Amino acid sequence: MAKHNLQNTIALIERTPATLNALLRDLPEEWTHRNEGPGTWSAYDIVGHLIHGEKTDWIPRTQRLLEFGESKPFDKFDRLAQERDSKGKTLPQLLDEFARSRSETLAELKKLNLQSADLAKRGMHQALGSVTLSELLASWAVHDLSHLHQLSRVMAQQYREAIGPWTKFMGVMQCQGHSE
Amino acid sequence: MAKHNLQNTIALIERTPATLNALLRDLPEEWTHRNEGPGTWSAYDIVGHLIHGEKTDWIPRTQRLLEFGESKPFDKFDRLAQERDSKGKTLPQLLDEFARSRSETLAELKKLNLQSADLAKRGMHQALGSVTLSELLASWAVHDLSHLHQLSRVMAQQYREAIGPWTKFMGVMQCQGHSE
Repeated sequence: MAKHNLQNTIALIERTPATLNALLRDLPEEWTHRNEGPGTWSAYDIVGHLIHGEKTDWIPRTQRLLEFGESKPFDKFDRLAQERDSKGKTLPQLLDEFARSRSETLAELKKLNLQSADLAKRGMHQALGSVTLSELLASWAVHDLSHLHQLSRVMAQQYREAIGPWTKFMGVMQCQGHSE
Repeated sequence: MAKHNLQNTIALIERTPATLNALLRDLPEEWTHRNEGPGTWSAYDIVGHLIHGEKTDWIPRTQRLLEFGESKPFDKFDRLAQERDSKGKTLPQLLDEFARSRSETLAELKKLNLQSADLAKRGMHQALGSVTLSELLASWAVHDLSHLHQLSRVMAQQYREAIGPWTKFMGVMQCQGHSE
């Protein structure tokens, strides 16, 4: 699957809210609200970050690209927005909000009825330069997976001491905390 | 949460079948049946491996430890068993089997009604040496998370080319394929 397949992308991103819901809802806060140290994210922070992406990243960038091509770069993504936006909300509220946002963005994506020629169109990323719509939408799926990957590591780290000598057998414990 | 909390462990491991079901059921095989290269595992292989763990690892080792202490080591875990056991089964069948197995092992775990004194008891791991029941059970949760971590990476790798320059922004793409 070296090439991007939009139907496969949609199949993946439409499952993410239910996946996070099954994993995180009503899980003890020792799992969901702890991070990997100062400046790092908990599962709670990650869900907030995903919500912000629904509002400001994937569909707005798709629209910018289709309207302006490479002539007007995407807006910068605020990687700390969830600190502000999640304030006062519980994790179940964030999970509900993510499910609602994702279902809205999916509806907008489907409404665009994108064809192969659209997927080849180019836009401008401030840091990455010229990118195709295909690359942007494929990144939406990988971004979900990257945060699932991060979240499983953050949670596993909470048991680093509890598992004693098993640390060396667990792949997740060998992962060098990439930021996402 | 440096210390092991059995209720937190149970809360986590009882959610894994629903998490994998939400993520993987009816997802295109381009996501679920591809691996990271020769000798590596696909999401399909990982679910088979988790089923084998339910049958031969966590509860049987708990029973061995409670019955024999350090005098009789755990049986070795067969990390390739799923190649044999999954043969001819579809992924939805494996997901059903995992959910069933996990619910049975959870019932057995709860029936043991383990107390703090039990969790401090020791058994013998062939490679790791003396381990406590607490470490064994905490490892059950981390093993689930480790395979969720692996599975999100294996799936993300299928889009390595599709996302073009975004590769460098995705943490999951920086992960050095640990075996689990």
